[in-house]
Amino acid sequence: MSQHIAKQFDTELEDVRAHVLQMGGLVEQQITRAIEALSSGDVAECERIIEADHQVNRLEIEIDEQCSHIIARRQPTAIDLRMILMMVKTITDLERIGDEASKIARMAKNLHEREQVHLPRYREVKHMSEIAVDMLRQSLDAFARLDVSVPAKVVRLDEQVDEEFKTIIRTLITFMMEDPRTISSSLEILWVAKAIERIGDHAKNMSEYVVYLVKGKDVRHVSADQIEREVGQ
Amino acid sequence: MSQHIAKQFDTELEDVRAHVLQMGGLVEQQITRAIEALSSGDVAECERIIEADHQVNRLEIEIDEQCSHIIARRQPTAIDLRMILMMVKTITDLERIGDEASKIARMAKNLHEREQVHLPRYREVKHMSEIAVDMLRQSLDAFARLDVSVPAKVVRLDEQVDEEFKTIIRTLITFMMEDPRTISSSLEILWVAKAIERIGDHAKNMSEYVVYLVKGKDVRHVSADQIEREVGQ
Repeated sequence: MSQHIAKQFDTELEDVRAHVLQMGGLVEQQITRAIEALSSGDVAECERIIEADHQVNRLEIEIDEQCSHIIARRQPTAIDLRMILMMVKTITDLERIGDEASKIARMAKNLHEREQVHLPRYREVKHMSEIAVDMLRQSLDAFARLDVSVPAKVVRLDEQVDEEFKTIIRTLITFMMEDPRTISSSLEILWVAKAIERIGDHAKNMSEYVVYLVKGKDVRHVSADQIEREVGQ
Repeated sequence: MSQHIAKQFDTELEDVRAHVLQMGGLVEQQITRAIEALSSGDVAECERIIEADHQVNRLEIEIDEQCSHIIARRQPTAIDLRMILMMVKTITDLERIGDEASKIARMAKNLHEREQVHLPRYREVKHMSEIAVDMLRQSLDAFARLDVSVPAKVVRLDEQVDEEFKTIIRTLITFMMEDPRTISSSLEILWVAKAIERIGDHAKNMSEYVVYLVKGKDVRHVSADQIEREVGQ
């Protein structure tokens, strides 16, 4: 590549990366707003969140197109190509996180339209969502800086999300057994907790791609300690 | 491209496609075996299914590598490039389906180790899984033949899966309310049903990629009727 073309290519790549980060920011907002709406019961806000999912979807398509164009026009190889393919995977996870956020908003809407104001375990679910959002933020950061020291932290946070998820389910079971009339509302909050658990999984995938890109190692289904060994931290 | 290179390229592309279909076949088997194990309670079989998930993961990595190599060496453009990028997305969904199958096997193992032989709604769950497997098979078929008449059918089957899922949840709620001692086992089968519902979603994604590839249209979040209009069937 001539210097001029190489520079253009870098600019284009930077542009896609900025786009991915923008998509990540939007998705992060969607989660936070959906969890808020769960407690505020603001039905109009729920509808706005559901509506905004189109924006997330549109961004995925745009970035996908951008990636295809760059590959077709610039014919990148080695690390540049892997970087682009990794972005294609990352935005798929971001789009799915967006879906989960919009599902939570839909559940919030249903609950409040039925005037179900008491949500069992809301505080715990909110806390769980804060960790998941933190995971997402750190994964985006790892992506932006290609920082392989982050993924092990994200995996540890995911273990925490999974633990909190199990605890919530256990307490919900006790709650339902003590008062079977709470079964329906308990299941609603259980689905919200499940959506957050999945958001954590997607964020984890995203940071695993970073390790794969930088180190060429597949660290899915391995522990945080192993990841640290793999990346030599 | 010279004719010779073009032919090599076609052979390579065919090879990846065959690999994707092989991965699809393996994943299909994993689901069916996991659902069987749920009723047979064969713990050794559960462990074999969980173990076989590594094969699914390895195939994903291999196909990913193959796709990168083809892009780097052949520098495909237009439809060929989109075809490769679509395979990269398809195998991500296949890998996630594999994860869900292995989760079901893990649940089957847990249930039977606790000697929980009575599974509420097993018959319904099995039926739901058969539709999901059918969706997967048809999506793979749509992919193999780039047949855009299939996706609308897959979307309709997904609506059926979602309906059956809701019915199972509703009956489980009644069941739990009538006898709160069944709450724990009901939740286990609820998670299995949820895993199958997600398998349906992934299969649906896969057939939507086919429409996107062939028609350049994003048909996520639209109805089966709309898809038929989009593809002009």
